[in-house]
Amino acid sequence: MEHKFKPSKYYYTFGPHEPALRLKPGDTLITDTVDARGYDSKGNPIPDGMRQQSEDTEYYPANPLVGPFYVEDAELGATLIVKIKKITLNRDTAWSRINPNFGSLTEEGPGKRLLLNEPLDARYFPWTLDLGRKVANLNLEKSKLGKIEVPLRPFIGSIGVAPRYGRIETSLTPGEYGGNMDCVETKEGITIYFPVFVKGAYLAFGDVHAVQGDGELCGTALETSAEVNLEVNVIKGKMIEWPRLEDDKFIMVAGSSRPLMEAFKIAHVELINWLVADYGFDRWEALQILTQVGTCRIGNVVDPNYTVVAKFPKKYLP
Amino acid sequence: MEHKFKPSKYYYTFGPHEPALRLKPGDTLITDTVDARGYDSKGNPIPDGMRQQSEDTEYYPANPLVGPFYVEDAELGATLIVKIKKITLNRDTAWSRINPNFGSLTEEGPGKRLLLNEPLDARYFPWTLDLGRKVANLNLEKSKLGKIEVPLRPFIGSIGVAPRYGRIETSLTPGEYGGNMDCVETKEGITIYFPVFVKGAYLAFGDVHAVQGDGELCGTALETSAEVNLEVNVIKGKMIEWPRLEDDKFIMVAGSSRPLMEAFKIAHVELINWLVADYGFDRWEALQILTQVGTCRIGNVVDPNYTVVAKFPKKYLP
Amino acid sequence: MEHKFKPSKYYYTFGPHEPALRLKPGDTLITDTVDARGYDSKGNPIPDGMRQQSEDTEYYPANPLVGPFYVEDAELGATLIVKIKKITLNRDTAWSRINPNFGSLTEEGPGKRLLLNEPLDARYFPWTLDLGRKVANLNLEKSKLGKIEVPLRPFIGSIGVAPRYGRIETSLTPGEYGGNMDCVETKEGITIYFPVFVKGAYLAFGDVHAVQGDGELCGTALETSAEVNLEVNVIKGKMIEWPRLEDDKFIMVAGSSRPLMEAFKIAHVELINWLVADYGFDRWEALQILTQVGTCRIGNVVDPNYTVVAKFPKKYLP
Amino acid sequence: MEHKFKPSKYYYTFGPHEPALRLKPGDTLITDTVDARGYDSKGNPIPDGMRQQSEDTEYYPANPLVGPFYVEDAELGATLIVKIKKITLNRDTAWSRINPNFGSLTEEGPGKRLLLNEPLDARYFPWTLDLGRKVANLNLEKSKLGKIEVPLRPFIGSIGVAPRYGRIETSLTPGEYGGNMDCVETKEGITIYFPVFVKGAYLAFGDVHAVQGDGELCGTALETSAEVNLEVNVIKGKMIEWPRLEDDKFIMVAGSSRPLMEAFKIAHVELINWLVADYGFDRWEALQILTQVGTCRIGNVVDPNYTVVAKFPKKYLP
Repeated sequence: MEHKFKPSKYYYTFGPHEPALRLKPGDTLITDTVDARGYDSKGNPIPDGMRQQSEDTEYYPANPLVGPFYVEDAELGATLIVKIKKITLNRDTAWSRINPNFGSLTEEGPGKRLLLNEPLDARYFPWTLDLGRKVANLNLEKSKLGKIEVPLRPFIGSIGVAPRYGRIETSLTPGEYGGNMDCVETKEGITIYFPVFVKGAYLAFGDVHAVQGDGELCGTALETSAEVNLEVNVIKGKMIEWPRLEDDKFIMVAGSSRPLMEAFKIAHVELINWLVADYGFDRWEALQILTQVGTCRIGNVVDPNYTVVAKFPKKYLP
Repeated sequence: MEHKFKPSKYYYTFGPHEPALRLKPGDTLITDTVDARGYDSKGNPIPDGMRQQSEDTEYYPANPLVGPFYVEDAELGATLIVKIKKITLNRDTAWSRINPNFGSLTEEGPGKRLLLNEPLDARYFPWTLDLGRKVANLNLEKSKLGKIEVPLRPFIGSIGVAPRYGRIETSLTPGEYGGNMDCVETKEGITIYFPVFVKGAYLAFGDVHAVQGDGELCGTALETSAEVNLEVNVIKGKMIEWPRLEDDKFIMVAGSSRPLMEAFKIAHVELINWLVADYGFDRWEALQILTQVGTCRIGNVVDPNYTVVAKFPKKYLP
Repeated sequence: MEHKFKPSKYYYTFGPHEPALRLKPGDTLITDTVDARGYDSKGNPIPDGMRQQSEDTEYYPANPLVGPFYVEDAELGATLIVKIKKITLNRDTAWSRINPNFGSLTEEGPGKRLLLNEPLDARYFPWTLDLGRKVANLNLEKSKLGKIEVPLRPFIGSIGVAPRYGRIETSLTPGEYGGNMDCVETKEGITIYFPVFVKGAYLAFGDVHAVQGDGELCGTALETSAEVNLEVNVIKGKMIEWPRLEDDKFIMVAGSSRPLMEAFKIAHVELINWLVADYGFDRWEALQILTQVGTCRIGNVVDPNYTVVAKFPKKYLP
Repeated sequence: MEHKFKPSKYYYTFGPHEPALRLKPGDTLITDTVDARGYDSKGNPIPDGMRQQSEDTEYYPANPLVGPFYVEDAELGATLIVKIKKITLNRDTAWSRINPNFGSLTEEGPGKRLLLNEPLDARYFPWTLDLGRKVANLNLEKSKLGKIEVPLRPFIGSIGVAPRYGRIETSLTPGEYGGNMDCVETKEGITIYFPVFVKGAYLAFGDVHAVQGDGELCGTALETSAEVNLEVNVIKGKMIEWPRLEDDKFIMVAGSSRPLMEAFKIAHVELINWLVADYGFDRWEALQILTQVGTCRIGNVVDPNYTVVAKFPKKYLP
């Protein structure tokens, strides 16, 4: 069954909130996401009353999520499968911004003052998107750098399920439930496997990026809105520990933690565990082959947790 | 006003749950805490139905909290003051345990597989507490090490308020809202200042330790139950960023994050900010004097976040 | 001038040792490297007396280096250019090994016991190299995984100059002088720019890998011998801070440090500094564009220092 | 035998340089150290020609060392014992300085640009030392903070032996050979045990601090000159892995690495290994007791490696 869903509420947290819609395994969901600041395809902000309430309205107004979507049969201990069938950018602008005390190369994070140095000044970068030619442009003519043109490679920055034990996570944090992984792999054509910690899974997503490099250095990619088309399914009785991803060429694991090396280790250890459990490798063989043929991508090194995606080429699977 | 409170429910998360009791500034609260596994002064577990519900009953049954206590006048942006007037241990046993995949020296954490090595085997250590002589004993006579006797130095392992933006944190995690800091400074006689992120503050606490060294290496200290006596107050209109502590000799800040160095930096930067804002130092002077006279304690290096307490001796304040 | 050089001594340290040969800018050097344990193209070990002497003959017998090569005109503060023109594998075997207390996923390093867990057992993996078909093979038929076949992608694991201030570094450590970066980018066709810290530069190299994935997880890649053909040049009066790399498509910086995030930051900050100094970007523009189009590779996460290579696509240069 | 030694050369590296003097086990050495910038008890700098030569005279002119002292019987695999019998400050001034791009709270280090932020401005702090009253004073009267007075607690900042495998380390780096640990425990009365990596041990030291807090936050303590009186001995046939310390109350291990958590783990694992090897604990018992009674001090979090000293109270030894 195909659901065309129009959001009436946006959340800033992953958790078992009142479901926006109930899906059955095999269902397709088509819905629109707004950008990281809540602006839609027309450039309009989320209307009053449609945002998740909080006393502290100054804090964390980033990454509004659509959902949560309750998935039937997604019991505790099952695996939720989400196939991203299509991501259609739906406006001709995107923005990026250098923010004081934020980003990889200033070593500061949300609510964390780690330095005595003065923060880097803010700077706003308005990009235009040419959806026909599938490129993004930034005008730097004042600096004689001219016009920068980059191919569009859209992906969903933030997608996840309700964390375990009733824990609620903000839409800025990635973890074992997925979340704001900001990794370029959660793009059209990918299949994501999420552990189910809470009955119904409570899938939610948002924060589409039109373009992004490894690490999301300055803390913001090309932030924009999109129409997302995805299909959900459930594997009963199979629990995984961390989000797994699969496309034509790779099986992958997305590990999220701090410091960066811990995200790296989580992703690789879980990928080895996968090779051992499902593909007949012993621990040493899996480690050996992954050492020689594995690659990895760094999702973000900005958020409260960092994300590393470890990748194993499918052509080396038996 | 003095409240003798008998808990009827225990939580495993810090957050704006249904208040257990409403306190006014100046009130004193006397209540019992159970140990990290939920056992009380008689050695009885928390009765069925008095634990916070969750689908996933296998997970995180550590550090049940009493509360939350709603404090009048604790508005968003205020500071909650909690003075620990007394911690009275109330049974003659404590336990500690080496758990597989847990603790500083195995580099593993809750839900995180970081190693391919085999985990260290479990071992249970039953300690006895002599409340009269104020010592804890462990019998290692089989190993010819004889009987180890250690002076009691009880403190509250886990004490905090509701995190910002409706975020719910498990009772195992410390952060800017306090929580499971497991630092030896949250002992009798200390005054703790918490930022208030949610109206009412929602103070909760538990997990008293009879004895613990720096870092809580194996992941469990001398876990026991106690009667806690504390007084609450509110400073309106003054927002702090991280928990501050004060006793006769030191002003302190408890920073919690990962990696360890980030907790270290948070604690020290916030302590410098405090010296600058309230005591007339400029940034360079505060850094210079703290460099020469500051000390620090490492709370825990086990939990999802680590805790460092940076200390400035009051005798160097103007 | 082209030098065919036959090594008569192998070093285990980068430093201003007695030069093996003096090169002029523009010269080409062709020489053979032995594998990480000192075995040559015939499978013979380095003869007695040709190894750098040390009292402690048990320690660090890894990565014997050829050189050092003294480069005329390479004054302190200059930049040494090394173009790798050809890497010719010259035997039909390579080996890899899982070593106890070594590698990314056991969190141990040379001389560092960080865990109480038991180490992972050793395992030796003999690979064969088909130099005609340009593939490496590993027979895992006992495990029913069959024969693994991987395309050869040879690169130099360890290449660098004398560190600054007379500091001598072992051939296992990477740093601002290059060294054991174990990054897949130091392959045929690459141009490497090294800072010159000591007059003559004292170029040395070895440790060719036939194949390796990101991070060199288990601590050893496909270790083998090779003939290396490279050309040296000097840029006078231009000092860089860290090794820079360039091929047809990317300009790159290799940062080496611990923890992993510090290597990441060094590489990206230095790449931004490069964009600002040589290509007309201001600091914000360089950060912005690198955020959107930058990629990175993780060299090794094994050695005393880890290596990250930050990459900027040349098509976005003005 | 007692040697009154007057240095004629100062080194900036630990390594097997030409011995300044040969000592026998049991000998006492009395000599003067200069401050971190090379100024002596009269305020005079090291004369030209008495500094270790280097092409790069701009770099690392910090922490000149006296020595190296060759110790007879200190064979590879032995343990060198150094008892610090006396540290006598010998001038009435000390200085400290906040340097751009240096120190814990700016997250930068020697040769490492990790940030895009502007560095913190420099500031010089001249302290006076009242050797009679045993206090240091800093005049902050312009800031109305008045005069700061701190008790003297002198210790040797940098003391170590030649690293293994001919590796030479700068006097700014600590490691398994000791070095610039900048830990407050290397004070009068302490006994230090060093592993011997090179025959003769090649003991060297310098960089006395009159006062310092935990972590040496700004990167410089109260830098001054002193007369040092120490006794050397050798334990043959006993190899340790990291520097061990002992005073009346504690046995200790100093671990040095990056990141901070790794220094913490090295120190604690090696301390547990010591308890197991020499005192009859099994691994679990040592971990359990250390968890409850261990404390630690953070030496420095500034240098290329950080230092943590893990401490076990001797009263709990059998």
